[in-house]
Amino acid sequence: MVRAMSDDSGARLERLSGMLKRRGFILPAFEIHGGAKGLYDFGPNGGRLRNRVNQMWLNHWISMGNVSEISCPTITPYEVLEASGHVGEFSDFMTGCLSCEEVSRADTLLEDFHPNPDSLGKLELQELLNKSSPQCPSCGEKSWSDISAQNLMFNTKIGAGTSGRDGFLRPETAQGMFTSFPVLYRHFRERLPFGAIQIGKGYRNEISPRQGMIRLREFNMAELEYFIDPEASISHDFSSWSGVKLTMIGENEGEVSTSIVDAIKGGMVRHETVGFFIARTYEFLIGVGIDPSRVRFRQHESNEMAHYATDCWDAEIHGSYGWVECVGIAHRGCYDLEAHEKYTGKSLRARREFAMPKEVVIDGWTTDSAVAGPAFRSLAGKVKLAVEELPSDTSFPLELSIEDQLVTIEQTHVKRVQRTDTLTGEWFIPHVIEPAFGIDRIIWHILDHAYDEIEKQGEKYTIMKLNPNVVPVDYVVLPLYEKDGMGEIAREINTMLNSRFGVVSSFDASGSIGRRYARADEIGVPVCITVDHQSVEDETVTIRTRDTGQQVRLKISEL
Amino acid sequence: MVRAMSDDSGARLERLSGMLKRRGFILPAFEIHGGAKGLYDFGPNGGRLRNRVNQMWLNHWISMGNVSEISCPTITPYEVLEASGHVGEFSDFMTGCLSCEEVSRADTLLEDFHPNPDSLGKLELQELLNKSSPQCPSCGEKSWSDISAQNLMFNTKIGAGTSGRDGFLRPETAQGMFTSFPVLYRHFRERLPFGAIQIGKGYRNEISPRQGMIRLREFNMAELEYFIDPEASISHDFSSWSGVKLTMIGENEGEVSTSIVDAIKGGMVRHETVGFFIARTYEFLIGVGIDPSRVRFRQHESNEMAHYATDCWDAEIHGSYGWVECVGIAHRGCYDLEAHEKYTGKSLRARREFAMPKEVVIDGWTTDSAVAGPAFRSLAGKVKLAVEELPSDTSFPLELSIEDQLVTIEQTHVKRVQRTDTLTGEWFIPHVIEPAFGIDRIIWHILDHAYDEIEKQGEKYTIMKLNPNVVPVDYVVLPLYEKDGMGEIAREINTMLNSRFGVVSSFDASGSIGRRYARADEIGVPVCITVDHQSVEDETVTIRTRDTGQQVRLKISEL
Repeated sequence: MVRAMSDDSGARLERLSGMLKRRGFILPAFEIHGGAKGLYDFGPNGGRLRNRVNQMWLNHWISMGNVSEISCPTITPYEVLEASGHVGEFSDFMTGCLSCEEVSRADTLLEDFHPNPDSLGKLELQELLNKSSPQCPSCGEKSWSDISAQNLMFNTKIGAGTSGRDGFLRPETAQGMFTSFPVLYRHFRERLPFGAIQIGKGYRNEISPRQGMIRLREFNMAELEYFIDPEASISHDFSSWSGVKLTMIGENEGEVSTSIVDAIKGGMVRHETVGFFIARTYEFLIGVGIDPSRVRFRQHESNEMAHYATDCWDAEIHGSYGWVECVGIAHRGCYDLEAHEKYTGKSLRARREFAMPKEVVIDGWTTDSAVAGPAFRSLAGKVKLAVEELPSDTSFPLELSIEDQLVTIEQTHVKRVQRTDTLTGEWFIPHVIEPAFGIDRIIWHILDHAYDEIEKQGEKYTIMKLNPNVVPVDYVVLPLYEKDGMGEIAREINTMLNSRFGVVSSFDASGSIGRRYARADEIGVPVCITVDHQSVEDETVTIRTRDTGQQVRLKISEL
Repeated sequence: MVRAMSDDSGARLERLSGMLKRRGFILPAFEIHGGAKGLYDFGPNGGRLRNRVNQMWLNHWISMGNVSEISCPTITPYEVLEASGHVGEFSDFMTGCLSCEEVSRADTLLEDFHPNPDSLGKLELQELLNKSSPQCPSCGEKSWSDISAQNLMFNTKIGAGTSGRDGFLRPETAQGMFTSFPVLYRHFRERLPFGAIQIGKGYRNEISPRQGMIRLREFNMAELEYFIDPEASISHDFSSWSGVKLTMIGENEGEVSTSIVDAIKGGMVRHETVGFFIARTYEFLIGVGIDPSRVRFRQHESNEMAHYATDCWDAEIHGSYGWVECVGIAHRGCYDLEAHEKYTGKSLRARREFAMPKEVVIDGWTTDSAVAGPAFRSLAGKVKLAVEELPSDTSFPLELSIEDQLVTIEQTHVKRVQRTDTLTGEWFIPHVIEPAFGIDRIIWHILDHAYDEIEKQGEKYTIMKLNPNVVPVDYVVLPLYEKDGMGEIAREINTMLNSRFGVVSSFDASGSIGRRYARADEIGVPVCITVDHQSVEDETVTIRTRDTGQQVRLKISEL
């Protein structure tokens, strides 16, 4: 949910965006070619910050010990996204201005006429559009075409010529992890729970991208799919969060300040693992520099949640665009694996051993593969599954619909099955709990929260108080002058620091020391190292800390 | 260049590929949906390995101190790739089987009939196809459609409905770095040389993907664009490579073993910075575990090189598919920046100060902006540039072609310019030297070189001798049994190791210790930590090293 901003914060936002562009954090992509709405670059400072946030995120989940990183293609065949439901459902309602032909999202146009137009269906939107006649943001006219659904996936063709096959750019990283369930299950030695994480590009062909990094057509996302046995007992270790109060807005409770354990015990959070991920999400956000007082968790209302989900929470962060959803934590039940299983006929199940073996009476049918195999060919496997579901009193021939084809099952295709089995366990479809992170939105808020405008000697002065974990530059080395050996010493220190794995140091010799400090503060460099006359004599340097401005002398060998 | 393999290595390749799939390194993507040619997953072991190779690569270049990481969208507007020449030239020659309609690459079909069909043009390929009538790899027939050029970019539409705009998935990461030149130039405080690096997805809609990770439709690539002043003197520090002999195949010299300094001095390598990047590329490849004896650098022949390039070398690595090009290091001159400058009219130049100011007589024309501005509107800037190129004896009116439009320049639009300027410097288009890495191909060869099949007690035994820098799992913790407190200690150690940033430790309690060591060796875990009865008493564990099999006892506190 994105709200309007006040005029004051609008001016601050403009200064912040200007600085982020000028200093190469984030900027509109392909600008010399006129740009492209909804596409952004991470520039020479933003690129490193993005990488560090990504690595922090990966490590945050890998450190759980039962979570592995995978990487799947962004190009996804049609079938995969048909199975997942995206082909049918991943769409926005749009309408075109009859005067200038500019296309707009219906819910965006109607924001002034309804508290939550996002939640309306097509008919309701059409009715409201007819009644309220909003102005076209482009030309100001008020006549609109009928509302239609626009699929939000970028489409393409895989392969050349007539053998080309329909495909999409993935709308989320999740599907590749669901289709990888077999290899994950094997990797984790067939023991639930376990998780797969993936960080990478997601795509959404937005009708009208806006608000900078908030609504992009190509974005960086990071998802964990955590597979669990819904019947197994759970015990997460909440000890390190016992003293932490979170702001939570429950569907029924309204806004409360509560520990996560109390939120679970009181039933507001409906699954312990969802609660565990809420806490770990909070921990991650704070660790990359989000202001703890500007994070809240909001539970989806029942009508806002996908039909298969049993609980869903958004982490919302407050910044220049109001409260913005940056993470979604959803209990998705067995929906995803079941959808792919149904579509492909391949098992995506885990095995659960019974504490005690069970006796089960089987009384029904199966196919006679010697006859049914040749008769049904590629459908034979699915026919078998369907026949085994039939009640014992079924009579043949019988027509069944298999994969949109009507097949006739003759008596000769089937065999009666009557036996008592002793089962030591059973196969079931694991449930999935998914925390999904919008990395660009999080990075936006890291920058927004770090951006501090103060006064220094009567002038405006900017410091980016970035968490040292995610700064683009760790050190700046400044020779007081480039003469008398100071330049050489500074260059040597800079080279030495850069040779450390992952460390970024830069060298700045131009302008007064004060101006150079200001340049470093503007991009959030935590430590400046100044080489002066004394350095040449006793091999010490001045260390200046960004947030305090304090300076101490250190031996070069202690850096 | 990819060569055929012998039968022996074919069987080894099959075993290696099988293991990589079974153990979750690399595997065909979306396999439960029937897969998709040319798309691969990095599974739960491969994902971490890929990440580590990427981070090693980034750090390798960032440590130079004048190289910054950026990240641009993969979706790229039509204009950008038209400017770069990709819309016109990035294509393969294909032909279709008249019997089964399967599409094939002409050069691939003709490999048995020509030593290097890659180098042939369309007409030559057509002639050879007619003459040699190769068999269709799919149905065996021998009749082919005429050869046509197929653009290799994946295309899509940016935006909805009629306002949608043509775009492509980028074929390389480079273009985003060229279009980012203005922000890079500002970031590096207008001082050349500097570089931008980017690691991410590239796309190539291959007609017939093949050979596993070698020819993919979506791949991981990593490029450095290093911007230099072609007139500035260069002095790279080659001291650490003076004793290193490289295998190099010069266009005229044939294969030699030489130090990089000698290769530059002798003129085989035509630019010192190209030589510097050859050495740094070698260093990177060895650092991630490529066998030094299976790397060679091959210079492009003049007819193989893009017309604008002045020198180009491939790093080729030898493995199961023969010698495969994995890195290209090209001196691209001013081609790329000039192409975008011409197309957009935006300056992509750097300034060079003269040692001594120069006096220059200007005698020509410029536009009178008060008149020409309203007359030419959005074209006014380009008209001005064109007018300033006209000789002093031009007479008006005059027709000029600006961006495919014919405009008439009247006398009133222009002013005569005659003056003597003192110039302290000049603007010029920097040259670019580009090392471009195919990360998937490098990862393939890391795995191929590490894969070692030995015998142990008369049985086949597999060890992945991966460089510890890139292993998917750093430690495996093994309790001898899960009883008597050993399980708890092992779990505590595992948790402790996983809590370290970036470290991956796994826990394995099933099967004999020998089987567990074998499982760990198969994926290349460098160190196994065994918890036994003695551990419970004296808090020591057994450390076993993968490559030597040696075991030592260590205090848990020393891990």
